[in-house]
Amino acid sequence: MIPTGDAPAAVCRAAGERLQIEEVVVAPPQRHEVRIKIICTSLCHSDITFWRMKAIPGLFPIILGHEAVGVVESVGEAVQEVAVGDTVLPVFLAECGGCADCRSRRSNECSLFPFAMRMGMLRGDEAARFTDAAGAAVHHCINVSSFVEYTVVDVAHIVKVHKPMPPAVAALLSCGISTGVGGAWKAADVEPGSTVAIFGLGAVGLAAAEGARMQGAGRIIGVDVNPEKFEIGKKFGITDFVNSKEIGDRSISEVIKEMTGGGADYCFECVGLASLMADAFESSRSGWGKTIILGVEKHGSPISVNCREILRGRSIMGAFMGGMKPKTDIPILMEKYIRKELNLDDFITHEVGFEDINKAFELLEEGKSIRCTIWMDR
Amino acid sequence: MIPTGDAPAAVCRAAGERLQIEEVVVAPPQRHEVRIKIICTSLCHSDITFWRMKAIPGLFPIILGHEAVGVVESVGEAVQEVAVGDTVLPVFLAECGGCADCRSRRSNECSLFPFAMRMGMLRGDEAARFTDAAGAAVHHCINVSSFVEYTVVDVAHIVKVHKPMPPAVAALLSCGISTGVGGAWKAADVEPGSTVAIFGLGAVGLAAAEGARMQGAGRIIGVDVNPEKFEIGKKFGITDFVNSKEIGDRSISEVIKEMTGGGADYCFECVGLASLMADAFESSRSGWGKTIILGVEKHGSPISVNCREILRGRSIMGAFMGGMKPKTDIPILMEKYIRKELNLDDFITHEVGFEDINKAFELLEEGKSIRCTIWMDR
Ligand SMILES: [Zn+2]
Ligand SMILES: [Zn+2]
Ligand SMILES: [Zn+2]
Ligand SMILES: [Zn+2]
Repeated sequence: MIPTGDAPAAVCRAAGERLQIEEVVVAPPQRHEVRIKIICTSLCHSDITFWRMKAIPGLFPIILGHEAVGVVESVGEAVQEVAVGDTVLPVFLAECGGCADCRSRRSNECSLFPFAMRMGMLRGDEAARFTDAAGAAVHHCINVSSFVEYTVVDVAHIVKVHKPMPPAVAALLSCGISTGVGGAWKAADVEPGSTVAIFGLGAVGLAAAEGARMQGAGRIIGVDVNPEKFEIGKKFGITDFVNSKEIGDRSISEVIKEMTGGGADYCFECVGLASLMADAFESSRSGWGKTIILGVEKHGSPISVNCREILRGRSIMGAFMGGMKPKTDIPILMEKYIRKELNLDDFITHEVGFEDINKAFELLEEGKSIRCTIWMDR
Repeated sequence: MIPTGDAPAAVCRAAGERLQIEEVVVAPPQRHEVRIKIICTSLCHSDITFWRMKAIPGLFPIILGHEAVGVVESVGEAVQEVAVGDTVLPVFLAECGGCADCRSRRSNECSLFPFAMRMGMLRGDEAARFTDAAGAAVHHCINVSSFVEYTVVDVAHIVKVHKPMPPAVAALLSCGISTGVGGAWKAADVEPGSTVAIFGLGAVGLAAAEGARMQGAGRIIGVDVNPEKFEIGKKFGITDFVNSKEIGDRSISEVIKEMTGGGADYCFECVGLASLMADAFESSRSGWGKTIILGVEKHGSPISVNCREILRGRSIMGAFMGGMKPKTDIPILMEKYIRKELNLDDFITHEVGFEDINKAFELLEEGKSIRCTIWMDR
């Protein structure tokens, strides 16, 4: 029996309140689980969404964080895929390898472990593995919870880091950067020489640009309201920039159609706004234009699409994590990074020690950081 | 110089009025044009839409009809692709063979001859080739106009019938049946063994079923309000039927999800109603479900799609004529018919002589016919 242990955790006790570093007790891994010592973690926009989320009753207290890398500290008795000492990523999407979805090349949403905002584990008991000083349960967040020194994750959500690489870079592949790169690579399968337009140049949008560059796109147009994004974007292959605040009376789609002689081959929506999804669709080329939705709509609004325009050979698709299967596809991106075919280093713009985790929230909310690495041992 | 000639035509002089058989003068073909003696034609739902269309000023008088087969009577001096005596289909979509769209495997909308409601020819002069007894122009309809003994069509819109086959069967491939069969074959590329749901069992929907059967689908669910469609549908591979009027309080998507254990792999909307497009989308399986829009929305309403649901690996696409390139793909369907891999005979439920063309409108409007062949020589 592996003992329970105390670990510092950044606990969120109420929507929008600063995280508090406190000691929690982390239970040992159960049968199919892995206990991981987190090396570093980074902050994704979805963490800010969860942090501000008031609608879910009983969500708090919670340990947020779902982009991380760590070392396996102990494993449940049924775990064979990883061993103590392995470097691993915990990932919010699972891959069981055996269900209809995992066996299909077309799906990346495991049907045995479907994605949900789950406050405990799907397999085994429903209880949280974290307990606070008062003896109360502290909830998990989307199967990961990385803002803590030790976390417990089902092995279905674990990806092994099979080659040496900087831990802060490996952590990026758990969520946001995989969503963008995967969107261009797996979901859209961007063809060499094609024209790409990217709506919203946050981490996901910049990663979609990098994925399109990796796929050999000929032209990559970035659309954002912040002109500073163009300079950053050039590091990820962006060749043209449209400041959507400086186009006067014209619509974004008019501008993109004029620049491309009819529309972009691939349009990526990376913000999560239904109106921008419509702009992306209207900017896509008739005949074969694909619109790929990567942003999670912030208000739950539906996308509205002109029926006659979709009949002209256009399509719209959506994908969690860019259509990437975690255990199958993340190792391929690791290889591409090592072979210098994929730029990941430039996504990391800031770093802080764990005590300063609230600073990472400020930097991301103010649009100053792309990714801020949070080091557990500093 | 080829002489002009008189020909009986079924002219539509005002929206919704019975067609009148009258003599028109048919001009000789110009440089890139072909004059065709129509053997037979059939009535497509779009003809009824055009017939009832009051919104377009100056649309009337018009010669409707765009599913037909005929024999080349004369050709313009630049025409090399077909010769006098060839059996051909006039097709509303063009294929120039040289533009970016025709050269791409992904598009079927020629960019040199884009689809439009055009009352004359795109190439050459703008004038109509039909003149009535009073000397007034009679308009063309979507580049074809087959309700006339002789018609003039640009060679970009001509497909050669390269093998002997019954003319009434060949004519079907000009529009509706190609839209459905092509939807399953070219647009969706239905995988063997997959589950298909078809919304609306008119000619296009039945043809989508036949296309899915041809592709090896394992299960084909037809959805319609008319229970008689199930018996007809069995001829085209439909294995299950949902009467959407007899599902009580449940939604169509609930029923389809229950029948399929989570949703159909491919959902085809074949009516042209935004609400049914939403039903089709919601009936598609998470992970990889594809919704294919084949119906032209009757009211111009937009499709509305839940953003979170599309993120779960779903997609929506639309296609004119099922994504088929006329000159490339129609001959392949002719081959499949000859090899008995494609059932076309059962689409023809009625036939009338040209004098009784208004009867064909009645049969289709009342839902009695799938396709009614109109013979020019009877
Ligand atoms: Zn699975
Ligand atoms: Zn994330
Ligand atoms: Zn063309
Ligand atoms: Zn038609």
